[in-house]
Amino acid sequence: MPARDALAARYGAAHIPPTGPWSPVLDALLAHRSVRAYRPDPLPEGTLETLVAAAQSAATSSNLQTWSVVAVTDPARKARLAAVAGGQKHIGQCPLFLVWIADLSRTTRLAEAEGRTLEGLPYLETFLVAALDAALAAQNAVVAAESLGLSTVYIGALRNDARAVAAELALPPGAMGVFGLCVGHADPAPPAEVKPRLPQPAILHRERYGSSGEEALRAAYDSELGRFSARHEMSAYRWTDRVLARLGRVAALNGRDGLKDALRALGFPLR
Amino acid sequence: MPARDALAARYGAAHIPPTGPWSPVLDALLAHRSVRAYRPDPLPEGTLETLVAAAQSAATSSNLQTWSVVAVTDPARKARLAAVAGGQKHIGQCPLFLVWIADLSRTTRLAEAEGRTLEGLPYLETFLVAALDAALAAQNAVVAAESLGLSTVYIGALRNDARAVAAELALPPGAMGVFGLCVGHADPAPPAEVKPRLPQPAILHRERYGSSGEEALRAAYDSELGRFSARHEMSAYRWTDRVLARLGRVAALNGRDGLKDALRALGFPLR
Repeated sequence: MPARDALAARYGAAHIPPTGPWSPVLDALLAHRSVRAYRPDPLPEGTLETLVAAAQSAATSSNLQTWSVVAVTDPARKARLAAVAGGQKHIGQCPLFLVWIADLSRTTRLAEAEGRTLEGLPYLETFLVAALDAALAAQNAVVAAESLGLSTVYIGALRNDARAVAAELALPPGAMGVFGLCVGHADPAPPAEVKPRLPQPAILHRERYGSSGEEALRAAYDSELGRFSARHEMSAYRWTDRVLARLGRVAALNGRDGLKDALRALGFPLR
Repeated sequence: MPARDALAARYGAAHIPPTGPWSPVLDALLAHRSVRAYRPDPLPEGTLETLVAAAQSAATSSNLQTWSVVAVTDPARKARLAAVAGGQKHIGQCPLFLVWIADLSRTTRLAEAEGRTLEGLPYLETFLVAALDAALAAQNAVVAAESLGLSTVYIGALRNDARAVAAELALPPGAMGVFGLCVGHADPAPPAEVKPRLPQPAILHRERYGSSGEEALRAAYDSELGRFSARHEMSAYRWTDRVLARLGRVAALNGRDGLKDALRALGFPLR
């Protein structure tokens, strides 16, 4: 697909950014969609290992590698994890469900084996490094999966009950499931289209942060996303209203308002 | 490069995982290296917009898009940011320095314009969503940059002083620089080689977490990374010792032990 068409699909015809250098990888990245309906077909042999090799090839802070991944294929276990995530049916449908772990437990075992204590472990910073590195790794796995013709969707709702996920996966203290990822062959039946994002000037700042013109950009995006929703027989209320609905009430966090307590219980003091 | 060679470079010859399906994108992902020496050559016109389009194509939790990016090219500003990051010279060398922002300020402005308050904003969960989505976006930008022949390195050390970064970039309350990213043409002079990672069985778990065999895997990795370091005239002490040095003492966090206080000062209560 020519770059201009890919950018038009991502931003809408009225907000195409300047077209710069391009590559086939850019075509693939711009074509990303999250997929929530999967065929039951198993993955080719070795797919998991390939995805993990891509994930481990991402950068990792100071080469600490403070993340792990648990590959779940057992239908009963997937069903229990889907229940934690509010019953999202695609977790049961997909042949491979990956849970990405912020993992300071391996580092703790290393220190114990060496007879040392690690003063840096209890800090919010160290948890954040682990969570961010898990995210970089997972995104590489997503790009890798899509390059193999597979589809994915992130499942942040595992954080609705981080303790239940830890118990289900037998995570040791200092390990926490940051998010899940469905991997599989997309069911072609539901309509598939790239979802538009905010116009670039709303998120890209030069030298210093600025928000002038932001209200007009948001209004334009409300309209663009409304047209997208109408094409997919989704309720066409404004993006603005979706944001208000998601963040307006504590109840909409679905338990994630307890994340700090859950993390402390799982061995992250977040000092 | 055949898949097996790429995997051997990433894991060492003794720990090549099973070879599964493969693609040219996999070749690119497996070939990643962080680059810390840049030529001063400017980037082709439109490169920044292309990288941001790739970044915005990554998944974002509930489509909230709670991240921003500040593109820094001014040499004086890069020098000041390099000082925050402990004087890393590649920040000054690279033609484009991207600071990835966990940005709840845009959502706050949206709520103010609508005359609403957002109960969900003050929670650790909501900060984490913003930081993770910034990471997914940035990793897409990294993959995009490498597909254009450019190189990158993440700069977590911006968190040494998150308040100084916020002041430098005029970030509003509720916005925080999670990490930086150098983008540019690699200086070919320093030797370039893919860095080995832990053997897959140390980080990949099936159905439930397990750590049996971990000590042997770590010993093998200590040896592998020692050989890598020797080839690059770096001190060849064990990975184990690097981890102990990085996390053993609070002083090695270089100020990041104050991240929680800094975040609170920047408008993230982390409830």
